[in-house]
Amino acid sequence: MVNVTLIGTGGMLPLPDRWLTSLWLEYNGKACLIDCGEGTQIAIAQHKLKLSHLDTILITHTHADHISGLAGLLLSLGNCGKTDTLKIYGYTGITEIIRQLLCICPVLPFRIEIVELPINTKSSFMWNDIVISSLPLDHSIDCLGYSFVLNRKAVFAPEKAKALGIDVKYWKTLHSGKSIDINAKTITPDMVTAESRSPIKVSYITDTRYFGGLEEFAANSDLLICEGMYGDDEYIIKMREKGHMVFSQSGKLAINSHSKRLWLTHYSPALTNPYDYEEFMKKLFPETIISSDSQSITLK
Amino acid sequence: MVNVTLIGTGGMLPLPDRWLTSLWLEYNGKACLIDCGEGTQIAIAQHKLKLSHLDTILITHTHADHISGLAGLLLSLGNCGKTDTLKIYGYTGITEIIRQLLCICPVLPFRIEIVELPINTKSSFMWNDIVISSLPLDHSIDCLGYSFVLNRKAVFAPEKAKALGIDVKYWKTLHSGKSIDINAKTITPDMVTAESRSPIKVSYITDTRYFGGLEEFAANSDLLICEGMYGDDEYIIKMREKGHMVFSQSGKLAINSHSKRLWLTHYSPALTNPYDYEEFMKKLFPETIISSDSQSITLK
Repeated sequence: MVNVTLIGTGGMLPLPDRWLTSLWLEYNGKACLIDCGEGTQIAIAQHKLKLSHLDTILITHTHADHISGLAGLLLSLGNCGKTDTLKIYGYTGITEIIRQLLCICPVLPFRIEIVELPINTKSSFMWNDIVISSLPLDHSIDCLGYSFVLNRKAVFAPEKAKALGIDVKYWKTLHSGKSIDINAKTITPDMVTAESRSPIKVSYITDTRYFGGLEEFAANSDLLICEGMYGDDEYIIKMREKGHMVFSQSGKLAINSHSKRLWLTHYSPALTNPYDYEEFMKKLFPETIISSDSQSITLK
Repeated sequence: MVNVTLIGTGGMLPLPDRWLTSLWLEYNGKACLIDCGEGTQIAIAQHKLKLSHLDTILITHTHADHISGLAGLLLSLGNCGKTDTLKIYGYTGITEIIRQLLCICPVLPFRIEIVELPINTKSSFMWNDIVISSLPLDHSIDCLGYSFVLNRKAVFAPEKAKALGIDVKYWKTLHSGKSIDINAKTITPDMVTAESRSPIKVSYITDTRYFGGLEEFAANSDLLICEGMYGDDEYIIKMREKGHMVFSQSGKLAINSHSKRLWLTHYSPALTNPYDYEEFMKKLFPETIISSDSQSITLK
């Protein structure tokens, strides 16, 4: 089970009733956070997410609304007893930015390992049995999108094992992925499993203009979380100038990437009621949610 | 009239129901802010204070709970149209800390003038007809307390002017502070004013241990805003080790400095209900307020 919570839905600046856009993804008792704007640690406490589970932070880019809460969050992690290593991923150059931001918390009781990802090409790494991939986006400064793919083992099929006459004592070994030899015949795990299960995929796209590469990157997402600064298409050109999208472009991405669900986020502070565009978006892509802070789902 | 709003009352870390300690002081259409922890800009918006009035920020010290919201606040100042200079005061070395924190907002549409105050002695400067003084405190790192003194002109006394036979056409000149000569006799402003009015004084003391110098610095405050991490005296020794005070020490300071009012603030996150100590504090110093976020007063 992958638990996903959209901590906030704001862009540019935190509002009294809207935290900044940030994602909490939890699997197997460990949590990964994408971005940490001002107030993210307060929202984490408000949403009762367990800070002690956090072991990895991904940074999309270094605009203040995506990173200015980092120092406060790390201090709170220290206060809540963290001693094991925290990994932070961002693009080339992020180490120096983080070093400067942490000038106000010179002593932390845990080690920070910063990993710089390439800004000119895709890359992938493992976190907690999940493959995280990064994609360079098209924003006003360097920026990365992220996707999470959890590949799931096929389910063991007892009826197949029985049909092959395999004794129960060998089932556990086969289910663990190992082959066995019985009567000079090799039994492989795929011979005793049901059809393969599709992976669970979550894609997180902000901040960026629309471009074709997004479609391939977000392909077949169970959940596509995507920015939309405004609901009205009249803002398309203005947002393109600023390196952003509007709701209908996020809808287009959900359609073209064959995603199952779309959560909109990263609203402009000037967009006081994004829910006004719910009907419009449901017509375009029925599985759209105009997210609110603390929007969450468990993907099974 | 001096308007004072205590934006938040928390110490160490921002909580979902308690912003970090920060003061907004407004006089003559201009505002001065003391400290800017994470979330201060959100609290300013929530309290409907006018960001456009802000022209000066005083920093007590560079622990994250007092400065980590600075970058976000300055970006929001820029977004709300500020183009005139912003002055920031802090102790020697603050320039470099601010330079690092602002690495995530490289372009601002206004100039920042940073003034470094001495950390080994008192100092004073003028802001908006108010004398601001700083005092080195006794915290775990360098830290400054601040006081605001508004010296008020004596009120013009028409009866005195009439008794001296001064024509009404000269009253405005005298009231503006200039002397005039009538019939070879010099009339000075003090000859036509009522008794002098006492100044308005606000003192802001956080973070620090108790020491004698605080009493002189805060002497005769109309409003003393002072830290208190805990309400229970059993924490005195532990707080002294960490460079802090408890409520009763703040009460002692209010008494010994002959202050008129005491507002407590900067509560530990572990102190969930500081109001439990209201009765205890009212017995010690009746004019104590266990402040809540957005505590405010107009001093006339």
